[in-house]
Amino acid sequence: MTNNAAIEKAIEYLNEHKVRFGEELFDLLRIASISAQSDHAADVRRAAEWTRDRCAAAGLRAEVIDTKGHPCVIAEAEPVPGRPRVMVYGHYDVQPEGERHLWHTGPFDPVVADGKMICRGVADDKGQMFCAIVAAEAWLKTAGALPINLVFCLEGEEEVGSVHLKDVVEEHKQRLACDYVLIHDTAQFGEGQPAVTVATKGMVYKEIIITGPKKDLHSGSFGGSVANPGNELAKLIASFHDADAKVTLPGFYDRVKEMPAEEVAMMNNLPYDEKALLDDVGSPKTYGERGYSSLHRRWARPTLDVNGLFGGYMKEGASTIIPSFCGAKVSMRLVPDQRAEEISRLFEETVRARVPDTVTLEIKDLAGCDPYLADTSSEGMRAARKALAIGFDKEPVLIREGGSLPILPMFKSILEADSLMLGYCQPNCNAHSPNEFLHIRDFEAGMRATAAFFGLL
Amino acid sequence: MTNNAAIEKAIEYLNEHKVRFGEELFDLLRIASISAQSDHAADVRRAAEWTRDRCAAAGLRAEVIDTKGHPCVIAEAEPVPGRPRVMVYGHYDVQPEGERHLWHTGPFDPVVADGKMICRGVADDKGQMFCAIVAAEAWLKTAGALPINLVFCLEGEEEVGSVHLKDVVEEHKQRLACDYVLIHDTAQFGEGQPAVTVATKGMVYKEIIITGPKKDLHSGSFGGSVANPGNELAKLIASFHDADAKVTLPGFYDRVKEMPAEEVAMMNNLPYDEKALLDDVGSPKTYGERGYSSLHRRWARPTLDVNGLFGGYMKEGASTIIPSFCGAKVSMRLVPDQRAEEISRLFEETVRARVPDTVTLEIKDLAGCDPYLADTSSEGMRAARKALAIGFDKEPVLIREGGSLPILPMFKSILEADSLMLGYCQPNCNAHSPNEFLHIRDFEAGMRATAAFFGLL
Repeated sequence: MTNNAAIEKAIEYLNEHKVRFGEELFDLLRIASISAQSDHAADVRRAAEWTRDRCAAAGLRAEVIDTKGHPCVIAEAEPVPGRPRVMVYGHYDVQPEGERHLWHTGPFDPVVADGKMICRGVADDKGQMFCAIVAAEAWLKTAGALPINLVFCLEGEEEVGSVHLKDVVEEHKQRLACDYVLIHDTAQFGEGQPAVTVATKGMVYKEIIITGPKKDLHSGSFGGSVANPGNELAKLIASFHDADAKVTLPGFYDRVKEMPAEEVAMMNNLPYDEKALLDDVGSPKTYGERGYSSLHRRWARPTLDVNGLFGGYMKEGASTIIPSFCGAKVSMRLVPDQRAEEISRLFEETVRARVPDTVTLEIKDLAGCDPYLADTSSEGMRAARKALAIGFDKEPVLIREGGSLPILPMFKSILEADSLMLGYCQPNCNAHSPNEFLHIRDFEAGMRATAAFFGLL
Repeated sequence: MTNNAAIEKAIEYLNEHKVRFGEELFDLLRIASISAQSDHAADVRRAAEWTRDRCAAAGLRAEVIDTKGHPCVIAEAEPVPGRPRVMVYGHYDVQPEGERHLWHTGPFDPVVADGKMICRGVADDKGQMFCAIVAAEAWLKTAGALPINLVFCLEGEEEVGSVHLKDVVEEHKQRLACDYVLIHDTAQFGEGQPAVTVATKGMVYKEIIITGPKKDLHSGSFGGSVANPGNELAKLIASFHDADAKVTLPGFYDRVKEMPAEEVAMMNNLPYDEKALLDDVGSPKTYGERGYSSLHRRWARPTLDVNGLFGGYMKEGASTIIPSFCGAKVSMRLVPDQRAEEISRLFEETVRARVPDTVTLEIKDLAGCDPYLADTSSEGMRAARKALAIGFDKEPVLIREGGSLPILPMFKSILEADSLMLGYCQPNCNAHSPNEFLHIRDFEAGMRATAAFFGLL
């Protein structure tokens, strides 16, 4: 049997059993596996056990791995010597239900409406993770074996920061060893436009506190005598950008790689609707670094944003004080090949140099992770793009993510494996919001794409 | 009897009876007339009645005037046709006791220690107000009549913003008509240096709210797409000053009058200890408009200060959001002849012109009052300076106050009278703080100075 014929067999199997798969997924969706809420810890474990059992039913050797937090599931197929190794990452924990009154149905009572499955976790990530499990089953039932070495590493703590995932990956490094990590926990570009996400941003997150007097002072008696921490903080923050909205930290752009021409061309061909964006977020206009479109900036340009401001009199009405201190939360999103540690250092150096000696300065380091960029010329990437074209019957595009995924540099560092991000849900699928959904057609196309990927690699 | 001889007689009377005066003042100090606390309303009224009775005992026609809040006391001496008219302003209400555990004695149990009277209200303003009552008594008992037309307007709401004083002044405009308002509710320059306060600052107080998106956004997904209200607010605030710490609002300095040479010379001769100031407030250095000393800036240069900053994520740790809005409380202290209404208008115009159309802007007007400058060449000012020299046996200086006193422009507007501010307490007398004090020697010198003023005018 040719490879193509084997892929067709697997896809045929998926089409034949898709109703059953939908019903099975609904069983998993009914488990309220909210990792953030300790009274749902037993539900997270139930979801782990359900996932283990379903992997076993698919023909994999599966086990629940305990951690200091919620458990993981590792499931392995029989080794296929000489073939590439793929590790599928996913998660069966979910976000809290959020504002219950905004849900049109019960958050954990899955329903089908308008061609969509609607339930907390259906897109993020239970439904997408499930595509990979049934794709494996399809190969095992139709070909008797997988065409690659396959292992699943599925966790129950993604929504609380993957607290213990690194421990598991380190401890089970040999079992999880792979050439590629396959991740379905992203999204398509939009309706009818499948995509491979090839980059995520890094992050450096700081808190700056500027202190002047040791106590709040009368602004009449002391205004004009000593520096005001609020005014000094504003000057510092204003100094972070120039008139072109470029970040002014010296050396900030030194390692920034321009997007390759192929990606830029794809991006410029995409139907990106700035008006719809503005209607959605409510800002009067788009704004950002001159010389780049807002989509370009979101995908591949580093940014520096105030996340919060505080200090002095913050309540209703007037209080005439010079604040003792004012503070700001400031974060930077980094792009390949910027390095979090380096940007963190140059940020601190620049801030220390810019804050005058009329006040004192404290900088807290609150978070940091490196950006991630996949190798877009790899065998795995070629297979992924072709698999999406088969599953969705449409050529995929390469896209980038404005958010940060610290697990990608972690996989790269421990497993030395590149991550391939093939998301099947829509970007507006209400992950983390009420009425989360996954189109049934995307769920089915996703199964097919994953099965095709296994065969094409 | 010559005028000088009459003044000497009055002063002799004050010296003879000073022990009794101290005891009487202690009776008033024991009344906890805290105007801010409604359960002390009866105490404020008791203080008004005590004051009325004491004025009557001095030989004045005195009555309690009810208002919609705490009562006032008006007390008049017999008219002296053809002589100048003086209205003495003061108040018998006091600040709350504050942090009780920091008091070394009971806040309303007056004691004498180290040559000081210690009690809430002894300086602000009961003890200083009392100086004027006994000065009037001294003239009435020794000369049989006052050398001027004298009326007292004493209130019980100074510590809560003189809410109903304007109503009283308007209603009793004829009785309170005067050439000068005499106010003892200020301080000397420092130990052994009596002073006339000739100016207070005006104020314009605004709240600025800059809004971008209609809700907080994910800083990864939207950073670089839309303007960040925190960064825009910082740019706006930073734009308020130039590198010389001058305020950049166009026209801001147009009406600013330089201090007269006489005042500048006096100021430069004063022992102003910047190190002590910094030790007290805890700032590393002084700072302000280039070209002026910190004392000069405090007295006679307008300032613009952030009073508070707020918006976005203000709690512990990191939250990666673009805030929907950020806000600032910003106030300006004005000097003669700036006008609050004009500065308010040009502030709003400038802010509207500077905030870009990538965000929306709201400005709230929270407070405002005009600055005040006394006529330093008037008959009254000459008499006041000479009176201080007699009472304190030391030439006084002219000083200015960084704070704002809206009642001064009010007196000017309704009574068309200039205010003469002769404060007898020390600037560090703990008004509004625990262990408020008034030196006995300043109390006695103050009585003498007020009595001398009545005779010298």
